[in-house]
Amino acid sequence: VAGRAGYIGTVRVLLTVAYDGSHLAGWQRQAGVATVQEHLETAFAQLFGQHLHVEGAGRTDAGVHALRQRAHVDLPRPWQLPVLLKALNANLPAAVAVRSVREVAADFHARFDAVGKRYAYRFLCGPQRVVVMRQYFHWARCDLDVAAMRAAAAHLVGEHDFASFATNPGYPRKRGTVRRIDHLHVPAKRHRVDVVVQGNGFLYNMVRTIAGVLLEVGAGRRTPADVAAILAARDRRAAGATLAPGGLYLLRVLYRDDAFCREAETSEGARADE
Amino acid sequence: VAGRAGYIGTVRVLLTVAYDGSHLAGWQRQAGVATVQEHLETAFAQLFGQHLHVEGAGRTDAGVHALRQRAHVDLPRPWQLPVLLKALNANLPAAVAVRSVREVAADFHARFDAVGKRYAYRFLCGPQRVVVMRQYFHWARCDLDVAAMRAAAAHLVGEHDFASFATNPGYPRKRGTVRRIDHLHVPAKRHRVDVVVQGNGFLYNMVRTIAGVLLEVGAGRRTPADVAAILAARDRRAAGATLAPGGLYLLRVLYRDDAFCREAETSEGARADE
Repeated sequence: VAGRAGYIGTVRVLLTVAYDGSHLAGWQRQAGVATVQEHLETAFAQLFGQHLHVEGAGRTDAGVHALRQRAHVDLPRPWQLPVLLKALNANLPAAVAVRSVREVAADFHARFDAVGKRYAYRFLCGPQRVVVMRQYFHWARCDLDVAAMRAAAAHLVGEHDFASFATNPGYPRKRGTVRRIDHLHVPAKRHRVDVVVQGNGFLYNMVRTIAGVLLEVGAGRRTPADVAAILAARDRRAAGATLAPGGLYLLRVLYRDDAFCREAETSEGARADE
Repeated sequence: VAGRAGYIGTVRVLLTVAYDGSHLAGWQRQAGVATVQEHLETAFAQLFGQHLHVEGAGRTDAGVHALRQRAHVDLPRPWQLPVLLKALNANLPAAVAVRSVREVAADFHARFDAVGKRYAYRFLCGPQRVVVMRQYFHWARCDLDVAAMRAAAAHLVGEHDFASFATNPGYPRKRGTVRRIDHLHVPAKRHRVDVVVQGNGFLYNMVRTIAGVLLEVGAGRRTPADVAAILAARDRRAAGATLAPGGLYLLRVLYRDDAFCREAETSEGARADE
């Protein structure tokens, strides 16, 4: 173990984390508010008696949910991982759970080694506003034209400059605004319509802006061809509203070795509500 | 209109109400806490400039959700019902919505005329605790034996003394503890198992106690035959725990004239998330 660790005695572990964002101020630690990173770091501090930095694969905003967020931590000493998993969960609030923990190489990095992410944006359709579970779905006031949404989505797949879909196109400046969307599906069943998107990276608010444009297409206010024009405009003003965070779910973070995700983990099993 | 009203000029209307119980202290008005009845009465007071009593078909506890609760109100003067519907919803918080409003006879009573109710209790099954939407499902830690649950449920259908299933069997004393369950189904799909029960009335906590016993059967800790014995015991100590309120949904209130429920209503349409 020591040979693979950052320095003798440390062990780097990768966490898979689920959280309900409804009453959390997002991932990143901030003074005075409850965040996922802070809850995790507090749980580690309770177990190890010292601050351990939890490095997430990426941030999520307040209100956004995650089924399989990833983060790495350097443990100052080895622990039995099944014991660590139970101990962490015993020290976390109901809104946050660690689903699995596994040892990784000392140079593995949850964020830098991520090669992609998959998100879902979820709609409930109907003339009446959503009441029960309203923090988990975006209300679409009419039935959506799913075929049109899928035709529009096809324009976004591939490598493009997504400046029109970033709330703050200058962020992060160093990486520019070109990203690759590997797939963008629109599964639908009865009153539920989801937008599921996987790509090599996402600009700030990009998924919620794509979902907003596809909602407009589904509602007949824009055409699929309009989406190609919005993309070509490279101007945030061309796209529509950024939808509310409650409909957004980080489904999973992808790493280069795809087998990595399926590899045996110290896990309590697959989530029931995925 | 006046001829059917309680006194000249009043109009009795029946409301269909949906609410998310997560952050509400139940139906009934209580000092210092947010309840559904209070939110509705506040909305009416804002529209009519006076207190109007909202009489519910029944109470629900803190944390319990409702898709189609019913309540009646006497309006001091006629209103265009579609306008009233919009105005009420504009004055209600996001956790409460009036789905429809219709005029009824002056002697119609939302509670006394109810001949039955239908509830659902919802489980999510799996080894990991529910995080996202945890206030809407009860976590069952293992896969449930749905066939055994259905066999157990069959013992409860019909007219029985449900004293074993009432947290406070003395309440309401005047009606005793005999009730009739018309049907009790256990629909299941993947990780979701629901208990859907319809009857002519329910004792305090009866649905949550039935759901708790069926959960024990599904988990293999009790047999279907045990449920017959629990029923025969007429002793609350024979049954198991009363499950948490978040898994419980009041689906609908039934009235004698079944067509009544299907009759054209001043409504915004069927709920998307039923």
